[in-house]
Amino acid sequence: MAAATPLLKDELDIVIPTIRNLDFLEMWRPFFQPYHLIIVQDGDPSKTIKVPEGFDYELYNRNDINRILGPKASCISFKDSACRCFGYMVSKKKYIYTIDDDCFVAKDPSGKDINALEQHIKNLLCPSTPHFFNTLYDPYRDGAGFVRGYPFSMREGAPTAVSHGLWLNIPDYDAPTQLVKPHERNTRYVDAVMTIPKGTLFPMCGMNLAFDRDLIGPAMYFGLMGDGQPIGRYDDMWAGWCTKVICDHLGLGIKTGLPYIWHSKASNPFVNLKKEYNGIFWQEEIIPFFQAATLPKECTTVQQCYLELSKQVKEKLSTIDPYFTKLGDAMVTWIEAWDELNPTGDNLAKLSIADGPVKK
Amino acid sequence: MAAATPLLKDELDIVIPTIRNLDFLEMWRPFFQPYHLIIVQDGDPSKTIKVPEGFDYELYNRNDINRILGPKASCISFKDSACRCFGYMVSKKKYIYTIDDDCFVAKDPSGKDINALEQHIKNLLCPSTPHFFNTLYDPYRDGAGFVRGYPFSMREGAPTAVSHGLWLNIPDYDAPTQLVKPHERNTRYVDAVMTIPKGTLFPMCGMNLAFDRDLIGPAMYFGLMGDGQPIGRYDDMWAGWCTKVICDHLGLGIKTGLPYIWHSKASNPFVNLKKEYNGIFWQEEIIPFFQAATLPKECTTVQQCYLELSKQVKEKLSTIDPYFTKLGDAMVTWIEAWDELNPTGDNLAKLSIADGPVKK
Repeated sequence: MAAATPLLKDELDIVIPTIRNLDFLEMWRPFFQPYHLIIVQDGDPSKTIKVPEGFDYELYNRNDINRILGPKASCISFKDSACRCFGYMVSKKKYIYTIDDDCFVAKDPSGKDINALEQHIKNLLCPSTPHFFNTLYDPYRDGAGFVRGYPFSMREGAPTAVSHGLWLNIPDYDAPTQLVKPHERNTRYVDAVMTIPKGTLFPMCGMNLAFDRDLIGPAMYFGLMGDGQPIGRYDDMWAGWCTKVICDHLGLGIKTGLPYIWHSKASNPFVNLKKEYNGIFWQEEIIPFFQAATLPKECTTVQQCYLELSKQVKEKLSTIDPYFTKLGDAMVTWIEAWDELNPTGDNLAKLSIADGPVKK
Repeated sequence: MAAATPLLKDELDIVIPTIRNLDFLEMWRPFFQPYHLIIVQDGDPSKTIKVPEGFDYELYNRNDINRILGPKASCISFKDSACRCFGYMVSKKKYIYTIDDDCFVAKDPSGKDINALEQHIKNLLCPSTPHFFNTLYDPYRDGAGFVRGYPFSMREGAPTAVSHGLWLNIPDYDAPTQLVKPHERNTRYVDAVMTIPKGTLFPMCGMNLAFDRDLIGPAMYFGLMGDGQPIGRYDDMWAGWCTKVICDHLGLGIKTGLPYIWHSKASNPFVNLKKEYNGIFWQEEIIPFFQAATLPKECTTVQQCYLELSKQVKEKLSTIDPYFTKLGDAMVTWIEAWDELNPTGDNLAKLSIADGPVKK
């Protein structure tokens, strides 16, 4: 338990959707420099993103995405941070950490800089407890355990697929809440990590998020947002709903809590309201849909689960708005693109039949 | 939000199962003296419990329980702290706080004494959020709120029926864990209150527990434990499983987290193992039973739900051990005794028919 957390240097990519300020990487340098960065530029490809010296990175703009995915690039959002999911797809690592460029290093109550990535790695490397609630929070943490009444057969837990970190300073609020509580700051450091129980949905925020790409990667699609779409700021929510349903089905766990980052500035609530207002209505139907969604036993891979969900989305959500038909199609395109860039034994075989031999 | 917490002096009883040391009440005097205490003596009725001057209390021993309940006294455990539930039944107040006599006043991280009762009252007086997970914990706390993606239609929350408090110092561990980790102490103060999501069971500990008697009282039966029974230390667990299933059915919420008390001493792990060992096996079947339990729509009161559960217990758990037939019967007796001591409009009417007019 007290062993040092492995760094996973060669097993983790950091995915960042655009970098609008240089301070961001400078501040994170002590923690991020050992890792490979994947930067996905969300807007005008002619603009240049400056990356400070010493970082190992690759940068993709819209032209790159179009070149690599061809017609399948239609599933990747444009002019929206949802484009970050392209980075998940091109990564070849087991773990992904994604963070927004207005998120800085937070301090713990003792004043020490929080190494967010280290805590995410801890969360991902130890099991989750989705099947029963442990009142002393994460039972695998040092100094913690399973309380009286926790069934012994469940103490092995489930593999952790997602680690959802939180935010000090500016909380992740929707536009109406931003408008109503403009001065609210999150100053409460809650020293806990917990598993979101099976069957419970949660609002997954993409600001400070890590996941196991091998376990859940293909479900981390951030949807169609931004330019040309009737909705924004629901990219991470969409990914969270799909991911949670699939994790529950496959017996995987999702943790939330530590680590905190320092969210430096609130985005404009008026702009946000414009992006969000459809989502505010739609989520009242989308959430019951996901709460009731079940997947057939035959779906045993994330891809199979995701394609099944895409069907259900088209069947049951298209009555809300034709957007969901388009989104359902994009979900299929996303999986096709994922499998093309990430050939496995299974789809290598399929590709072999269709296209002749493929190099590993 | 920032208003002072009401004391609820005339609406809350403190129920204590036996008091073996005088320090206990002296330590709690600043916080407990305004309230009425109900002490339920768990063992030999000839022994006298000393209550320090200045406390307003009533004391029940086994002879009192037998006298008041007659043959129905069989549902109240003897020589076990499970007898405390008799106190819930004889109380006439809306709220109950129950605490063990080895639980002392804890300090918060600033060194200030924690007024556990005040925090429980806060928890009970503001809603719960069982239908969707809020990643910033209790959204009704000062400085907190609902995060982006939390459906607006669910922000009214659900009435809170139970507030489950935690323990610093000695954690509430089962005997095997006590034996394996004899030196473990809980030193982590987690500054959070959260709702246990709908559909998720939790291990409810009776050491530091408050509830709304009007909303959930009749489900807070602590079962048959101790003298003459094949099991102990599962009294609060039993109440927690039944209560959670009924709260989920009736749309009520259960909170856990703050407040902490200081749990001063660990009970003897060898004695505990003897009490627990049947439960350790049995819970592997009991928990799936409760996870799958559903109640028919027609059950709209706690009593109706509880009687329905008692049937299911007899039907489905009696195969584990004949004890569960006896327990199922005791659950019925408990409800009969509850209704006798707590006549409502409904059962007053029934009593009128059977026994002639009853005074209100």
